[in-house]
Amino acid sequence: MKIAVLTTGDEIMQGVITDQNNSWISEKCHALGHVIVWHAACADDHDAIEAMLKEAADRADCVIVTGGLGPTADDMTIEAACKAFGKKLVFSESVFKEIENFFTKLHIPMSPSNKKQAYFPEGAIALPNKIGTAPGIHVHYKKIDFFFLPGVPLEMKHIFDVSVLPWLASKTEMKIVQRTLRCFGLPEADIDHQLQEVDLEETRLSYRYIFPETLLKIVARGRDEKKLHDKVNRVAENIRKKLGNIIYGEEAAPLSAVVLALLQNAHATLSIAESCTGGWIANMLTNIPGASTVFQGGVIAYSDQIKMNLLGVKAETLQAYGAVSAEVASEMAKGIQQKLGTTFGLGTTGIAGPTGGTKEKPVGMCYIALASPSGVEVQSLSYGRDRLEFKEIVAWTALDKLRRALL
Amino acid sequence: MKIAVLTTGDEIMQGVITDQNNSWISEKCHALGHVIVWHAACADDHDAIEAMLKEAADRADCVIVTGGLGPTADDMTIEAACKAFGKKLVFSESVFKEIENFFTKLHIPMSPSNKKQAYFPEGAIALPNKIGTAPGIHVHYKKIDFFFLPGVPLEMKHIFDVSVLPWLASKTEMKIVQRTLRCFGLPEADIDHQLQEVDLEETRLSYRYIFPETLLKIVARGRDEKKLHDKVNRVAENIRKKLGNIIYGEEAAPLSAVVLALLQNAHATLSIAESCTGGWIANMLTNIPGASTVFQGGVIAYSDQIKMNLLGVKAETLQAYGAVSAEVASEMAKGIQQKLGTTFGLGTTGIAGPTGGTKEKPVGMCYIALASPSGVEVQSLSYGRDRLEFKEIVAWTALDKLRRALL
Repeated sequence: MKIAVLTTGDEIMQGVITDQNNSWISEKCHALGHVIVWHAACADDHDAIEAMLKEAADRADCVIVTGGLGPTADDMTIEAACKAFGKKLVFSESVFKEIENFFTKLHIPMSPSNKKQAYFPEGAIALPNKIGTAPGIHVHYKKIDFFFLPGVPLEMKHIFDVSVLPWLASKTEMKIVQRTLRCFGLPEADIDHQLQEVDLEETRLSYRYIFPETLLKIVARGRDEKKLHDKVNRVAENIRKKLGNIIYGEEAAPLSAVVLALLQNAHATLSIAESCTGGWIANMLTNIPGASTVFQGGVIAYSDQIKMNLLGVKAETLQAYGAVSAEVASEMAKGIQQKLGTTFGLGTTGIAGPTGGTKEKPVGMCYIALASPSGVEVQSLSYGRDRLEFKEIVAWTALDKLRRALL
Repeated sequence: MKIAVLTTGDEIMQGVITDQNNSWISEKCHALGHVIVWHAACADDHDAIEAMLKEAADRADCVIVTGGLGPTADDMTIEAACKAFGKKLVFSESVFKEIENFFTKLHIPMSPSNKKQAYFPEGAIALPNKIGTAPGIHVHYKKIDFFFLPGVPLEMKHIFDVSVLPWLASKTEMKIVQRTLRCFGLPEADIDHQLQEVDLEETRLSYRYIFPETLLKIVARGRDEKKLHDKVNRVAENIRKKLGNIIYGEEAAPLSAVVLALLQNAHATLSIAESCTGGWIANMLTNIPGASTVFQGGVIAYSDQIKMNLLGVKAETLQAYGAVSAEVASEMAKGIQQKLGTTFGLGTTGIAGPTGGTKEKPVGMCYIALASPSGVEVQSLSYGRDRLEFKEIVAWTALDKLRRALL
């Protein structure tokens, strides 16, 4: 079924609040296999609402509208709907009784304005609202099903789950199966290029770049869930063959969780010596519950003094090569690995910027060292665009280096 | 001027992500005195985009579109625009050179797919994008100004601020003056209660709670900019009188920047010993350029071993009181302060959860210690709702404790 999701409200149009109802509703509809063809929003204005409803009727089989069901003067969705549909506004005695009961239960006097919420388009069905005063409304126009829900997220979600969702579920036999593959280490355009010859078997492949990673989403629709799963599995397998190690994980698991799980499987432990990342790596790891079983801790070594005192970096190394060098990164990683007696040690040193760069060592230059039982490996990286992005991409590259070492 | 704000993207229609670009753009347009008449979104689909653009042209004097300018196959906004406007798609040599330069600067090879981003509707003006590959586009159709911007928020905001905002400002005489006050340590409802008697002089005061802080925004509109500034200054002064130390800063400066500036003014230095915050405090501080002048570094002490070996916490203290105790927090703060020879030392120890809690020491329990030249102060805190929120609120409370000590 084609669905349009509409929103009314001045505060949405003025950017005071971000409309999160439409994405919440869309996700639920999409999961049932319906197609969301249109999102739109307009101000609390009679003509604008009327026009929007009529346009939605031209595009969709079902229209879900949120907002404008309250008791005040700027709540005018129902009046505008009556005008758009050419229906009379009628008073519902039974709905009015329910609104009265709602106030009685809370021991709050009912305002005369609330009477307005018992007026409905002729022929409409009221959808009960147990947690607020405005009931939802289900009404037909040109064989299209319109649902009107309150804008208050809690009340909207309640009515949607109780009354709209079961109705939507009854209207579809369409199933949807989806899979997300998470990639790091190759630009979106290159991934796209590599995948051009992969047979997608009529699934839809979408790209989403969320710095510094790219999410690939495979979506298959159809009636036979088993076949859809098989198809998505085949496509995922083909994509994996092409991209290999670039795919670090699936679904919601972040890189830090993937690395922690690999460490756990290998009965290995980790410690970290961070200079330019300043705690970013430790923070990523400790955001994951249970990190403490494999992550022992680390040192944030911003000054040379700490690099020497806590990590055992040699004064001669610092003098000969400078703090930002492959040699110092290597001694940092080995130093923390030995000091804390862990299987692996990671070290980062670089110039986060915006100042502190020189001609030889510009802002964005960085060295990442991984000390493992078999020795130390150092990798350099350059990313001079933004301090926070620099920290994040260095942290990801360091964890990804460890991930690849654990495969 | 009447403005329509449009979005394209499957992930928006499927509810995978909430569109925050439209509210960001709407707020900026509204602040200039323009009227936003329409929000709409549709899938990455030629016909749908074409229809949406044509409808927008019937409603608005200016249309701002985000999304679909990327290099991949599902980016099709510009092609759809050409069809809607009846314009040819032409290749821009100069834009292509800029995209090439972007990759050259980053030392990344350009993918053939990126060439697509240099194709424009005939007669369009490219709006420079210094932080990404897709330039914005300004094009006319039926005397209406269309702006096309990338969907990536950072790039969209950059192009909007540099190229679209000045254009929009030139089309209106309305001025707006605003000020943001940042509060930490008092719930929103209590702030509201305290401010009920403050004279707002017809400015608009809005509250925005972004965990764990509350932003107060004072907005004044009118034609006389000088008068608006005076008015906003007076209102801000009155709010400051009421809330005192609860306001930690203004505008965009985060708490970590405020603390670093106070340390610099006091010629003081800082080191940190983090257990339950796991690097969050160090990361907050090192996100600020120049942090290294006062922040020396620290230790992430997840295990008892590290607390003893690197921070000098006594085995007897750990045994007698446990790792999560005021005594251990105190020894951690003193230990790092002495080890690194800094003016101040901060220590955190607690149970981040979701597991690891006991009846005596439940999840969310935490101790924060501040070692200063005059001794150690310990504060306890309890916040058992969510691991990440716990880490963040402990980090904020620790930095705020240091801030108040520096006032």
